[in-house]
Parts: sequence; C-alpha cells; structure tokens
Amino acid sequence: MRISQLAERTGVPVHTLKYYLREGVLQPGTPTSRTSADYGEEHVERVRLVRALVEHGGVPVAGVRTIVEALEAPPPSRHELLGTAHCTLAGPGGDEGPGEVVADLLEGLGWRVWADGPFAAALGRAVEAARAAGAPLSEDVLRRYAEAMRAVAEVDLDLALAAGSPAEAMHRVVVGTVMVDPVLLALRRVAQEAASAERA
Amino acid sequence: MRISQLAERTGVPVHTLKYYLREGVLQPGTPTSRTSADYGEEHVERVRLVRALVEHGGVPVAGVRTIVEALEAPPPSRHELLGTAHCTLAGPGGDEGPGEVVADLLEGLGWRVWADGPFAAALGRAVEAARAAGAPLSEDVLRRYAEAMRAVAEVDLDLALAAGSPAEAMHRVVVGTVMVDPVLLALRRVAQEAASAERA
Repeated sequence: MRISQLAERTGVPVHTLKYYLREGVLQPGTPTSRTSADYGEEHVERVRLVRALVEHGGVPVAGVRTIVEALEAPPPSRHELLGTAHCTLAGPGGDEGPGEVVADLLEGLGWRVWADGPFAAALGRAVEAARAAGAPLSEDVLRRYAEAMRAVAEVDLDLALAAGSPAEAMHRVVVGTVMVDPVLLALRRVAQEAASAERA
Repeated sequence: MRISQLAERTGVPVHTLKYYLREGVLQPGTPTSRTSADYGEEHVERVRLVRALVEHGGVPVAGVRTIVEALEAPPPSRHELLGTAHCTLAGPGGDEGPGEVVADLLEGLGWRVWADGPFAAALGRAVEAARAAGAPLSEDVLRRYAEAMRAVAEVDLDLALAAGSPAEAMHRVVVGTVMVDPVLLALRRVAQEAASAERA
C-alpha cells in the first residue's frame, strides 16, 4: 500500500508517518519509484505499536527507538523483549534501591526480580508514601497484596505470550500495562463494594 | 489540649484548624473561656481524617462534610459508613450505567454491587478505553482480573474492619484506597517481572 493508504489504515496522518520514518522508528517501505514506496501489514503493526507507546505509555521517541531496536535485533528471547518494553515504560529509575521493607518482601516471596531495578524502587517509594499517610501496610498485608497482584501478572503474561508476533506481544505489554491499570483500580472499588455487602 | 497544641500534634496550622471549625468538619472543643476551648484525642483523629480526605483523596470540603455527618449520625452500620466514604471518593457519577460488558461480568461473578453506581460506571468506561486501545480484554480475562482484585478488596476490608473506631475505619478506607493504588500498580509490574523470569 502507499503511504496515504497506510495513513488511512492506521488513522495516523502522513506527516506523522514521515516523521516516524525519519526518526527510524518506522521501517522503510520497499521503494517503487524515486519518491514512493510500498508498505505492508508489518508497517501497520509497527505504527500501532508506536502509537500505543507514545499515546498511552507517554514514551518519548528515543524510548520508542530502544523498543524498536530490540524488536529488530537478532532473536532475543521473549523474556528479554518484555523486559525492554517494561524498562522503557518505567522511565529512568532512581539509584536508591527498593528499601529494606520491599527487599524483605521480595525475598520472602521468593520472586526472581531485579531488586535494584526501577520497579522495585518505585514499589519502595509507594510503600513509604502510603505508610507515611497512615496506611497500615504490615509485612503480612503487603504479602497478601503481592500475591493478589501476582495473579494479575499471570493473566498479563498469558496475554503477552499468546500474541502472534513479537511486535504484537510488545503492543500487548504496553497497552495491557498502561490501559489496564485503570480497569484494575475500578475493579478494586467494585470488589470492595461486593466484599463489604457480603460481610454486612 | 489548646488549639495550638492540637496544631502541633497534627501538623496542621491553627488557621487551617479554625477554618475546619467554621466549615463544621471539625467538631467544636469544650469551651474553657470566651475565646478558648479544650480539644481531645477525638479531635486529633478527626483532623487526621480530614487531612487524608483533602490531601490524598482530593475531596472538596463539601464532601468531607458528608463523611463527617455520616460519622456523627446515630449508629449507621459499618457497611453504610464505608459506602459513604467510597461514594465521596468516587465523586459525582455519570448517568450512563456500567455498559453491557460490565453488567454481564458482575452478574457472572454474582457480586452484590450497585450496578448503576459510580464504580461500575467507571469500570465500564475503563474497559471501553482499554479495548479501544487494543487491550484483549475478553470476558474470561476480565473475570480473572476481577477475581484477583477481589482478593485485594478482602485485604482492604480486613483492614477497615480491624480499625478501633468508625473514624479510624473511614481513615483506612480513604488512605488505603487512594495511597495503596500506586503500591498495587508497582506490585503488578514487579510481579510481571517475576512471572516472566519464571516462565523464561
């Protein structure tokens, strides 16, 4: 298809597609003349991924390039791919580490995670802020919350691994993480209502 | 204690405490002279609740008054109290209902919730937005997410019901809901990392 057709298929204007081409986040089409090229389904998929990253993930173009390079590099494992998508979404992490509470929690759970990575650090900060505001987050409470969120993560992984292509898996990680967060928080409130009604 | 001591204990300046008194969200102390009054532990607890609502819940003073009135009304059930706190946090709901997907989900789960309430409506909107962005939220996926969040809600309820007083229970609902959201989302990402590492 021509670039104008790619624009129609994806809902992304031609000038934005040209910007993606210049920035190297959209792979070039097959040249058909000195000024035009032919694009296929892989371009549609790529544009959708880039839109998801930019619109929903708030990822800057440099971050998009990191993800795209991971997709194009010779066969990384799906675990590595997901890690790349993940870290790009997290943005630059602090150097502060997760803090003692979270380090103990992760060790107690036996989870194999990057204890000095951006997510463990974000978790440490969130726990600290909630405790400072008076939330009674004991070790036992944190463990129960962690186990419930592990069930959520298993669904997330099932969806990412069921994707047809690496690009589609990345798309699912990004959209699934960013856009499903509000779904989970709304479910929490509805579930609180249900739990409270049952105990009343 | 005097109002200046109440300010010290709670970290809230005297002029803010006077504003709370004028607005009726802080109950008056026992008068000790024409211009001063004596405050007790119930005032400390109340100020903490008001701060939690305003600072973390983003609740306007009118909403705080609704919660305070519910606390002071003759013995409502704890379920009713939690419902009041809950609805105040939700803010004004739409009139649009939850939508078919969420209505079916809630029926399938057998949850006794207010299907036309603000939370079910918020859930309906979140699901629609996530699907529009390409998140593969099938009925089965939503059900699995809902069951995981139900486990979270059971912890939430345990904490609220273990509180010593109705005001403390309210405080836990507000702080627990608003400040624990980021903890849960951070746990989700760490759990994704752990699940991905185990499956790799």
